[in-house]
Amino acid sequence: MPLTRISIIGVGLLGGSIGLAAKSSIKDCHITGYGHRKATLDRALEIGAIDQAADDLPEAVSNCDLVVLGTPVGLFAPILAEIAQALRPGTIVTDVGSTKRSVVEMGERLLPKGIPFIGSHPMAGSEKRGIEFARADLFQNALCILTPTARTDVQALHAVESFWQTLGMRLTRLSPEEHDRLLAEVSHLPHVIAAALIAMQEESALTLAGKGFLDATRIAGGDGGLWRDILVDNRDNLLLSLAKLKKHLSELEEMLQPEHANKLAAWLSAAATRRENLVKQKLGELDPG
Amino acid sequence: MPLTRISIIGVGLLGGSIGLAAKSSIKDCHITGYGHRKATLDRALEIGAIDQAADDLPEAVSNCDLVVLGTPVGLFAPILAEIAQALRPGTIVTDVGSTKRSVVEMGERLLPKGIPFIGSHPMAGSEKRGIEFARADLFQNALCILTPTARTDVQALHAVESFWQTLGMRLTRLSPEEHDRLLAEVSHLPHVIAAALIAMQEESALTLAGKGFLDATRIAGGDGGLWRDILVDNRDNLLLSLAKLKKHLSELEEMLQPEHANKLAAWLSAAATRRENLVKQKLGELDPG
Repeated sequence: MPLTRISIIGVGLLGGSIGLAAKSSIKDCHITGYGHRKATLDRALEIGAIDQAADDLPEAVSNCDLVVLGTPVGLFAPILAEIAQALRPGTIVTDVGSTKRSVVEMGERLLPKGIPFIGSHPMAGSEKRGIEFARADLFQNALCILTPTARTDVQALHAVESFWQTLGMRLTRLSPEEHDRLLAEVSHLPHVIAAALIAMQEESALTLAGKGFLDATRIAGGDGGLWRDILVDNRDNLLLSLAKLKKHLSELEEMLQPEHANKLAAWLSAAATRRENLVKQKLGELDPG
Repeated sequence: MPLTRISIIGVGLLGGSIGLAAKSSIKDCHITGYGHRKATLDRALEIGAIDQAADDLPEAVSNCDLVVLGTPVGLFAPILAEIAQALRPGTIVTDVGSTKRSVVEMGERLLPKGIPFIGSHPMAGSEKRGIEFARADLFQNALCILTPTARTDVQALHAVESFWQTLGMRLTRLSPEEHDRLLAEVSHLPHVIAAALIAMQEESALTLAGKGFLDATRIAGGDGGLWRDILVDNRDNLLLSLAKLKKHLSELEEMLQPEHANKLAAWLSAAATRRENLVKQKLGELDPG
């Protein structure tokens, strides 16, 4: 049975795009949207991302197959607490949060028996934010990470995986712990490094910034509050990743001595080659044909 | 008097693009190319980036108004030594190197009296390399940094500035010292950070890499040998920039404590805003109309 009655809590870039993508790919689906700004809900109705706007949280989730938490991670706890008693048995709850240990623990703890929580991290979106950037094809060929635990309801997991697949996503599964560890390295660390590269610059250096600098710092363009939640929630892993990066930078400092120049060239070339292979692999994923 | 007889030593992405841009914007100009690979020179002739290929260095530079050193910085010393006696009085020598202290010192020391050396850093190009990527419009609206010293021939400086302007470049002047210090921060540091972000990743983390990671590491795609020369030449400044970045990362580590979450959000937002303003400023420069 496909999930057709869907409630989206937080109708921003991701929530709005889920609505648009679901409306265009799931037959007879009905989307309810909830958010604290009326203008956002009006806009979501206008572009067809939701069929109905709900005034309060219990009303928004009281009669649906799937609830998708689309707000910043920092708001999940009060939302879960508030909806827990309004959900009918069998409703599945998932989310789009960028961290998974605390989120999955919270979902499993705060929802009553019979209401499965499935952790999802659809890796789509950009430094842009808000319903005005929502697109039906945002998830096409992008990766969705599901983070089941020993307590996860397997049927609900399959139903949520099938939901993301219908929206065009590729799937993978990781434990919440592995998810947070790997994301710290490949996403949260690059984000803070980009921010630090901007923060440290003198104005006179910035006037010399070229396309390379703008590319390297693009990810720092995200919303401060949203990223604060992610980074604080995943700070143990992020601190480990920062320590790992510093170790590599210390090795680099050694290699800058002229007598190690060949080692430096090999290190730079290895990084360039590794990135090139990664780009090829990613292009293959985006265009499998 | 515009510089019309031009000799380009090293006909790669930059040298080839200089040839194409000069041919399309300077009346009656004649370009001689020199390089150690015959295939490159043949290709440069074929696409019209040079009018004539020279077999040896003295021949390449013996009768011209301007010599442009377009090879990696590490080759400048032997080239300057070899051409020093073949240049006719009044010929101006410039370069396209990414570091300027050692290059300008070398140019002023190795060239005889009457042959002015003008340090140039046209900030164009990309992680691509080679004549096959040369384009006549590579320099359009890009910034060229000139690095005069107290010993610089002012007329020669004006002539070289006028040359880059004819190719479509915006101009700025910095001392060689200031150039190397600022470029370490805004270009050389981001390059090694991008390489380190790639080098440190586990394979399983890379499979989760999204567009953000690919953007953040694009600059690491350059040629290892070319970048080794730049980084080793500018290692004192790069080490200072690395220390400065580490200081910012230590501050970040403090801010990751939940009680400093608001400070973290403000820091992230400030970086995002600073980058946004930079993008606006750069767009204005690229499209002044």
